[in-house]
Amino acid sequence: MNIKEKSLELHKQWNGKLEVNAKCPVSSSEDLALAYTPGVAEPCRAIARDPEEVYRYTIKSNTVGVVSDGSAVLGLGNIGALAAMPVMEGKAALFKEFGGVNAFPICLDTQDTEEIIETVVRIAPAFGGINLEDISAPRCFEIEERLNQLLDIPVFHDDQHGTAIVVLAGIINALKIVGKKKEDCKVVVNGAGSAGIAIAKMLLSYGFKDLTLCDRQGILCSGDPQLNWMQEKMTAVTNLSHKTGTLADAMKGADIFVGVSAPGIVSSDMVRSMAKDSILFTMANPDPEILPDLAKEAGARVVGTGRSDFPNQVNNVLVFPGIFKGALEGRASSITEEMKLAAAHAIAGLVPENELCETNILPHAFDPQIAEVVSQAVKGHIR
Amino acid sequence: MNIKEKSLELHKQWNGKLEVNAKCPVSSSEDLALAYTPGVAEPCRAIARDPEEVYRYTIKSNTVGVVSDGSAVLGLGNIGALAAMPVMEGKAALFKEFGGVNAFPICLDTQDTEEIIETVVRIAPAFGGINLEDISAPRCFEIEERLNQLLDIPVFHDDQHGTAIVVLAGIINALKIVGKKKEDCKVVVNGAGSAGIAIAKMLLSYGFKDLTLCDRQGILCSGDPQLNWMQEKMTAVTNLSHKTGTLADAMKGADIFVGVSAPGIVSSDMVRSMAKDSILFTMANPDPEILPDLAKEAGARVVGTGRSDFPNQVNNVLVFPGIFKGALEGRASSITEEMKLAAAHAIAGLVPENELCETNILPHAFDPQIAEVVSQAVKGHIR
Repeated sequence: MNIKEKSLELHKQWNGKLEVNAKCPVSSSEDLALAYTPGVAEPCRAIARDPEEVYRYTIKSNTVGVVSDGSAVLGLGNIGALAAMPVMEGKAALFKEFGGVNAFPICLDTQDTEEIIETVVRIAPAFGGINLEDISAPRCFEIEERLNQLLDIPVFHDDQHGTAIVVLAGIINALKIVGKKKEDCKVVVNGAGSAGIAIAKMLLSYGFKDLTLCDRQGILCSGDPQLNWMQEKMTAVTNLSHKTGTLADAMKGADIFVGVSAPGIVSSDMVRSMAKDSILFTMANPDPEILPDLAKEAGARVVGTGRSDFPNQVNNVLVFPGIFKGALEGRASSITEEMKLAAAHAIAGLVPENELCETNILPHAFDPQIAEVVSQAVKGHIR
Repeated sequence: MNIKEKSLELHKQWNGKLEVNAKCPVSSSEDLALAYTPGVAEPCRAIARDPEEVYRYTIKSNTVGVVSDGSAVLGLGNIGALAAMPVMEGKAALFKEFGGVNAFPICLDTQDTEEIIETVVRIAPAFGGINLEDISAPRCFEIEERLNQLLDIPVFHDDQHGTAIVVLAGIINALKIVGKKKEDCKVVVNGAGSAGIAIAKMLLSYGFKDLTLCDRQGILCSGDPQLNWMQEKMTAVTNLSHKTGTLADAMKGADIFVGVSAPGIVSSDMVRSMAKDSILFTMANPDPEILPDLAKEAGARVVGTGRSDFPNQVNNVLVFPGIFKGALEGRASSITEEMKLAAAHAIAGLVPENELCETNILPHAFDPQIAEVVSQAVKGHIR
């Protein structure tokens, strides 16, 4: 069986990937008298008196809603809420496995921005945090921002920030290898969707100065009617030298390329045109923008991809379990820029200096200490 | 420690009562390649092609949403969504313990009928059924009916139908003991909220003819401006002899009294005024309408209460796990009157004829075969 057949078989065999269990005993009348009627009235009364007590007596304290409208799922596009279920269940499984956090899939039968916002607000009582997932740009930006204003629990769009944080962690370490300073680097980010825009924002917030954002039409330039409102907004802080042209034009002389775009769209010549000791994060799905071997042959020094079968896997499972673990434990009301930067530094710091090399810039996803280290870093920056 | 302190301690110790776990392996790269990327794309594609496949590849097939707005919680009243969480978690725990069904609490931060309906419709993709819980009358009637029209999964308000089914099961067996026929019995139901109205409907649908419904003001009579629309509707099928008066008036000569009202409101004299070999289900919370010993002294033959420390506990945990287990396994699109009647007969049938007596008219909640027997009965009546 190939991987597709094996995956279908696994999903069929288990009939879905999650289960909800009681964690306290409920197998005798005495148990039920405490966990259900009549005893349960007491924690209810305590919460009715002081809503904060919900964090003491219920799963809210350690439970995340994984919310999607199925509009931008993996490499599959707009497949809708039902078809997105296997991804959201998988994500919820990873939350528990890697972060010890309960998560439950909320797949929404609407793709209307206002309806998504009001629905998440209404179901929020059971959750200590909301992980937005696979919601298409530019709606995802507004949905996340508005929900963070409306709710007193953290709302985090993992496709944006999870990806941006792990990319920054990789770049922090890659820069050590090539011996360059962020202030001197020219950066190109290709793919101005949710991930690309979040990566650009995060790199600017980290301190890169010269960053060019590209999409299908080439370098993003203000006034292009094809741009959505967020892309237009990004032209104010990227491409400060007002270049125009193609991705190939943008990449000439660049030190860092980050691709969240499409398989195979970067050529060897384009890599050759970059500055010496170039760094490439080619994270297109299912195949990278250029294969690592080709990029290396063309002069790249450090190459990361989204895949587990190449070195330097850029995987946001390094991020979201620890981010939420820390935010929940620290009762953060939102996940701030400081918390995200702290997470990136913590992840970068997990690769010991003496093991840091061109093919080892990020910790392995199954390193058991990641979530705890990330959560501690995040907790240290909750205001 | 008393039960209140013990319950607070239990809830604090466990920090809530549920956990969400992966039921398939997710602890290696190989596992993740099947359960998450890239393999997960395959079940997503299968569902996108044929939405029915969601029942094969996801937890929808065996997962219920426990939905409440916290407007009518236990004996606590309108305590809101957050404070309702311990009850909904407990309910979800019972779904798994008794029926093997996954359930997750959806506590809604709105008490607007239209908003509740549209929110449940939007979150329905993850669920194979919706258990409405502790939503106040008469809104609960409209919410349930409209959701059953809008959704292709069963929507079941347990406070109504779970209670009604178990009451009917108890009455079926109690009638065997007293040797009366349903056609000859005068029935009084006191408390015209969600449970009382559902009990009245169920008993009429089972075949009782002479049923009087009472509430605070006494016998419900058409035209009373205090009645809500559902109570008014019920006056067309109850109290066909157009009596007026108090609960005491209604109970004179009655064979069966069902109380879902308030502690202590039935006196010994009222029981004495009933027909010979009377049957009383006194299910007020936390104490019955009259204590069983007093009722027996006053002439009652069979007495059931909601409490586990008296004989004949009328407990809807006998119902909802098996009802949903059967509905999910049989892929019912709704829970029909036939399915409910079948459940009541199945529960009544679980007490062997030779064990049936005045103090043993219902199976014990922890009888391990209940959910399976109820689910089989329910499955046999799915159209």
